[in-house]
Amino acid sequence: MSPSSPNLSHGRTYLAIPGPSVMPDRVLRAMHRASPNIYGGEIHDVVAGIWPRLRAAARTAQHCAIYIGNGHGAWEAANANMFSKGDKALVLAVGRFGIGWAESARALGVDVELLDFGKSSPVDMARVEAALVADKAHHIKALLATQVDTSSSIKTDVAALRALLDSLGHPALLAIDCIASMACDEFRMDDWGVDVAVSASQKGLMTPPGLGILWFSDKARERCRGNDLRTPYWDWEPRAFGTEFWQYFNGTAPTHHLYGLSEALAMLEEEGMDNVWARHRALAGAVWAAFDVWGTGNPAIGLNVARAADRGCSVTAARIGGNDATRLREWCEHQAGVTLGIGLGMALPGDPAWHGFLRVAHMGHVNAHMTLGVLAVMETGLQTLGITHGEGGIMAATKALSARA
Amino acid sequence: MSPSSPNLSHGRTYLAIPGPSVMPDRVLRAMHRASPNIYGGEIHDVVAGIWPRLRAAARTAQHCAIYIGNGHGAWEAANANMFSKGDKALVLAVGRFGIGWAESARALGVDVELLDFGKSSPVDMARVEAALVADKAHHIKALLATQVDTSSSIKTDVAALRALLDSLGHPALLAIDCIASMACDEFRMDDWGVDVAVSASQKGLMTPPGLGILWFSDKARERCRGNDLRTPYWDWEPRAFGTEFWQYFNGTAPTHHLYGLSEALAMLEEEGMDNVWARHRALAGAVWAAFDVWGTGNPAIGLNVARAADRGCSVTAARIGGNDATRLREWCEHQAGVTLGIGLGMALPGDPAWHGFLRVAHMGHVNAHMTLGVLAVMETGLQTLGITHGEGGIMAATKALSARA
Amino acid sequence: MSPSSPNLSHGRTYLAIPGPSVMPDRVLRAMHRASPNIYGGEIHDVVAGIWPRLRAAARTAQHCAIYIGNGHGAWEAANANMFSKGDKALVLAVGRFGIGWAESARALGVDVELLDFGKSSPVDMARVEAALVADKAHHIKALLATQVDTSSSIKTDVAALRALLDSLGHPALLAIDCIASMACDEFRMDDWGVDVAVSASQKGLMTPPGLGILWFSDKARERCRGNDLRTPYWDWEPRAFGTEFWQYFNGTAPTHHLYGLSEALAMLEEEGMDNVWARHRALAGAVWAAFDVWGTGNPAIGLNVARAADRGCSVTAARIGGNDATRLREWCEHQAGVTLGIGLGMALPGDPAWHGFLRVAHMGHVNAHMTLGVLAVMETGLQTLGITHGEGGIMAATKALSARA
Amino acid sequence: MSPSSPNLSHGRTYLAIPGPSVMPDRVLRAMHRASPNIYGGEIHDVVAGIWPRLRAAARTAQHCAIYIGNGHGAWEAANANMFSKGDKALVLAVGRFGIGWAESARALGVDVELLDFGKSSPVDMARVEAALVADKAHHIKALLATQVDTSSSIKTDVAALRALLDSLGHPALLAIDCIASMACDEFRMDDWGVDVAVSASQKGLMTPPGLGILWFSDKARERCRGNDLRTPYWDWEPRAFGTEFWQYFNGTAPTHHLYGLSEALAMLEEEGMDNVWARHRALAGAVWAAFDVWGTGNPAIGLNVARAADRGCSVTAARIGGNDATRLREWCEHQAGVTLGIGLGMALPGDPAWHGFLRVAHMGHVNAHMTLGVLAVMETGLQTLGITHGEGGIMAATKALSARA
Repeated sequence: MSPSSPNLSHGRTYLAIPGPSVMPDRVLRAMHRASPNIYGGEIHDVVAGIWPRLRAAARTAQHCAIYIGNGHGAWEAANANMFSKGDKALVLAVGRFGIGWAESARALGVDVELLDFGKSSPVDMARVEAALVADKAHHIKALLATQVDTSSSIKTDVAALRALLDSLGHPALLAIDCIASMACDEFRMDDWGVDVAVSASQKGLMTPPGLGILWFSDKARERCRGNDLRTPYWDWEPRAFGTEFWQYFNGTAPTHHLYGLSEALAMLEEEGMDNVWARHRALAGAVWAAFDVWGTGNPAIGLNVARAADRGCSVTAARIGGNDATRLREWCEHQAGVTLGIGLGMALPGDPAWHGFLRVAHMGHVNAHMTLGVLAVMETGLQTLGITHGEGGIMAATKALSARA
Repeated sequence: MSPSSPNLSHGRTYLAIPGPSVMPDRVLRAMHRASPNIYGGEIHDVVAGIWPRLRAAARTAQHCAIYIGNGHGAWEAANANMFSKGDKALVLAVGRFGIGWAESARALGVDVELLDFGKSSPVDMARVEAALVADKAHHIKALLATQVDTSSSIKTDVAALRALLDSLGHPALLAIDCIASMACDEFRMDDWGVDVAVSASQKGLMTPPGLGILWFSDKARERCRGNDLRTPYWDWEPRAFGTEFWQYFNGTAPTHHLYGLSEALAMLEEEGMDNVWARHRALAGAVWAAFDVWGTGNPAIGLNVARAADRGCSVTAARIGGNDATRLREWCEHQAGVTLGIGLGMALPGDPAWHGFLRVAHMGHVNAHMTLGVLAVMETGLQTLGITHGEGGIMAATKALSARA
Repeated sequence: MSPSSPNLSHGRTYLAIPGPSVMPDRVLRAMHRASPNIYGGEIHDVVAGIWPRLRAAARTAQHCAIYIGNGHGAWEAANANMFSKGDKALVLAVGRFGIGWAESARALGVDVELLDFGKSSPVDMARVEAALVADKAHHIKALLATQVDTSSSIKTDVAALRALLDSLGHPALLAIDCIASMACDEFRMDDWGVDVAVSASQKGLMTPPGLGILWFSDKARERCRGNDLRTPYWDWEPRAFGTEFWQYFNGTAPTHHLYGLSEALAMLEEEGMDNVWARHRALAGAVWAAFDVWGTGNPAIGLNVARAADRGCSVTAARIGGNDATRLREWCEHQAGVTLGIGLGMALPGDPAWHGFLRVAHMGHVNAHMTLGVLAVMETGLQTLGITHGEGGIMAATKALSARA
Repeated sequence: MSPSSPNLSHGRTYLAIPGPSVMPDRVLRAMHRASPNIYGGEIHDVVAGIWPRLRAAARTAQHCAIYIGNGHGAWEAANANMFSKGDKALVLAVGRFGIGWAESARALGVDVELLDFGKSSPVDMARVEAALVADKAHHIKALLATQVDTSSSIKTDVAALRALLDSLGHPALLAIDCIASMACDEFRMDDWGVDVAVSASQKGLMTPPGLGILWFSDKARERCRGNDLRTPYWDWEPRAFGTEFWQYFNGTAPTHHLYGLSEALAMLEEEGMDNVWARHRALAGAVWAAFDVWGTGNPAIGLNVARAADRGCSVTAARIGGNDATRLREWCEHQAGVTLGIGLGMALPGDPAWHGFLRVAHMGHVNAHMTLGVLAVMETGLQTLGITHGEGGIMAATKALSARA
């Protein structure tokens, strides 16, 4: 770079990390308001309007609970409702967040059997089958899996897990972490026989971090009644079935977040969930196409997940070896206004290998302009920094979109 | 009222309920922003600036943990950290929220001894002393009390509780619910020997509901290590002493709330905590003066708490008998733009007596104009509705302020 | 004041100056948005919705033009459209702003005959009649008057001016400055035979300063065609009758202000203009009642305008002699959070007498809480500063409201 | 397009029209605030801080006046100050806006000699010289030119105009319309001997439409004193040299806009004007590179201005023949979230040729991500719509940036 090269980051900076995602103006505007009365009036109507839309987002006619909390809080809520101390869980991990959910359960006293498939391979259904078959006494109360692991961007075939349980006649509940996938990747709770779904506000739901959300089936509700890990804060019963407004939130409602979430859900409804999913699929495809081209010129560049069907549509983890991922991230942020995600979980900060991974988010409030802009900036950065790469990734991305569009 | 009387509520409506309080424009503006990067940069600096100011607000040099949660969440957090299952707690209740904290502990498996002083009497120190003296074996691990109970507006003398424990040589930890009093009523954690203080964002801390906050002493930290009620979400250790940013929040940080809280704490710092407390004391005095005058003309009108020293400075509970409290509340809201608090906990909704109570909040972002305006509107309502009252409450309020000012 | 007296201004500060007025949250929220496309789409619909509501606010079925400008801009716009160089205008002044409009006309080359009624007396209809009668040749092309002069708070009887013109058979156009009165005081352009009405956004129209507005009659349009003072920027023809969007604003539209104005007009429509006027009348009555009581104890305190019928309902000018008005203003602002208006035009800054006047605004987004709060703060200030006054002004204000309510 | 193709516009829509430009969050946040007192306090400090920064933006140590108005208002302000009726102006037009300024002057009574260079050719200096030479008596009081005409994107060499005047010894003032170029293209008022510069808030100054700005030299001030076109609203003397705050704005200050402008100017100062100019130059170069490639495959596609030195750096006008420009604009807006500018002035709406032009803005708050995103979307649209084009425009754009970066 010449000393006279201009800094091109001044303008609206773009955050492409996998959560918090880009907050829509409509959501922020809805939250910029005076505190409402919480004993009646508008906020009660707002919450009444949130329930059906939250159900629609997960394609379920069953139950829903909102927590003031983040994704980790939602994990703990799900575990506290599903289990009594000593109950057994089978947890499938394809990245750091699957392991995190397992750790949460274990810390609460759940007997966790963890199947860890590493950080770049999808769930091996044969291993899951073996574990379930081995559980002849049906001690496994619930099977926990992550639809898309934010760290690895690996997607798990949720419907296949249900089919497997059913084919084996195993009664375990099916619990899915949808934190990184809700309102991004297709999810059909009732069709797919999911008993517990877990999410949070700050990704596909386009609302600032601060809300955790559970959806749960009649079956889960019945089978988990009276579990001894349940605490007043985590108990989903009053949150879903309370007779007084305060019970929905176990105390003071998160007023401003509720206005924001309501607006975000209205936006999803206006767009239609089918288009929301198709939009994410198309934009993810553009990102993958760019990496595929870049990788043709440099084996150190590549997507983390080999098979497209195993990739989540909200975030893409990738390798750009040596310390080039870090160099590229820093150039994009400081010279071009784009903040990419670090390579969380592939290698730990401190480990030199850590600088060879990054993630590109394309979740929530994201369109062709935003995503193509990220890819074009990345290619500019690759060129500027002299990182060897196959040329034309951004072209391939535009073609991927125009082919679909 | 004549059919041609104008509706005088159009304008900026004023919320005088005891939480959420009025949010400062500076706080809302700080929250109206793009999502920040959470892996570095500005939000890390913002959080670094929050810790010392949170400590200053509680006048402590010890430890602090922030939770995504509300006051009920903060109760559960405090209980989960302080106790193992079966531990004993002595809880003092002077209103619904003292009982609530006890219920939270009991539901977690704590052995709760509840001293309930009713809804309009302060803590009877002799009864507390008797209970502590009776605990010869020092089974009581912690003494829990509410500095100001939001429902009754009764204040408890925190320093006196510490003096009592010390005089008896009882080792119980002293834990105080400051949800309705933090940054309103004088509170000196270290001087008063408080071991655990509990608060939330939406009252004196002038930030939308969504954050619970604990302050805890070295002694509490040491004595409570390894308690078995502690869960990953509630554990205060990583939140206060984490080595990575995400540990402060057990996962994704509540980014927008942190910007808001930071601004609110800056406002408190600019004003100075001594003035913050004195301001609340003065405004509370104005409210009390008005009620005293109104009550001279109607015995059904009166403050809930007899002795000024026993009243909180952030909220005032009062009787306006029959169904006049409800009539007045509704007139103020629909005709004059002021929403008063319902009489929570004095009588339950559904009970006819419920309509004889109300609460006036004067917490957080509140000045002479706001509070005097509420009182003048209330007196206008009393006149308009023909509710018998001693005339001149608002005059007495102005004199209370000018005498102090 | 004792050194330990708390500062009671911290909280939401209240601006009681006669413009800019308090901006509703809805208006500010509507303006906090991305720039719209100006070549089509939503902003075109927004503007289409503004026209009928602007007409409704002035009770006219005739024409309307919006200028990017302030009140002074709107004066110049009105003058430039109404007159050719050398045309004659009769201008009635009851305060500084009446004189200001005359000065604007004179500077443009209009032959101005100014009838100045001083700063505390209403228009003397006999003098107006004499001036019109003297104009036998009907040289006077337009009669200009201020409905409410912001500086003096004197109101002029607009319908009476029309009746006078008609009774004399004088053909002069009737042009009214409604800057301080529009959407506060009753105004019926068509019923009252007004030919040109002038206003601006920042008072009763509850939108930040930046828009000037003219309403004009068919008669004014026809009679003023071809006037040689008209410039491209001020010409009302394309602004009212343009065939392309840009013509409405003679160039780039004031996009964000238009969103704000649209929201403000929607609020007026929701409330209904009859209630808007009645609300201002009631709140003004409360202010007058307070001053009347204060003045009973000190002849130096008094309203500027003797007869209630001659007082505007949006702002009240008053005397508090010596330098007490300034002392009181400063106390209210720095100790209690209320900013009052200076005594504009009664005496000039620099003149010692200047410190004996102030103004209290009650215009636009203002309700019982806001106005009573101002009066209660003022009475507290009078007491604190030891300014002699009749006690109980705030009580009288509450009674004035409850009598009407 | 297949019926199942997703709509990719959902997300933050991007406005690439040449004004209003993208408003920075910091600016909108600064404007979202309560009305300030205008008689003293913070807003006075804000305005005091604006003057030096406005001067810095134009690189002048001379004078500045702010008008509530738009660009057309600023033209009229400049004309009204510079001329008396009958004075002569030489106006150079390279697009619709140059003609507009001439029309404004002519309508005010100025004797305008217009040199129109068409819509895609730069100023021909020889013709200007001829006109000046022909003016032996020095009747031409001012030479008016547009630095960048928003409609054609042609840039005029301002320094060359000054050199020409000086070389001929012609005393005409040099007045430059910088509406589309200020804070985008390099501009050095004092170095280049500019006497009057005209701009507005909504483009490079990154503030919503509503402010017009004039900078003027000592020489212009002296030479234009007493001009008879000057009106109270347009007179620059009190706006630049007023002794009272209200004089700066001839009445009520545009309070909220001033907060916004102040923030925008602070952003420019933080970045540094040299980088601001270099950033625009770089981004413009990327846009030109894309069009050059697209045009290699289709002669109907091309930049409006042949020579790079004659192109403005804030907006690019181009041909995409037939009705393809319109088709592409509509696809980008409705399918990908990017609104491009219509081809203003090249052909008039209604004329079929009109659909063959468009403009891409890259002015103000714009960075690599935003501009590359626009170009990538455009290339996707070209592909999707089957518009013949040279492939790889977006690649060329990234290379243009990485070569400079």
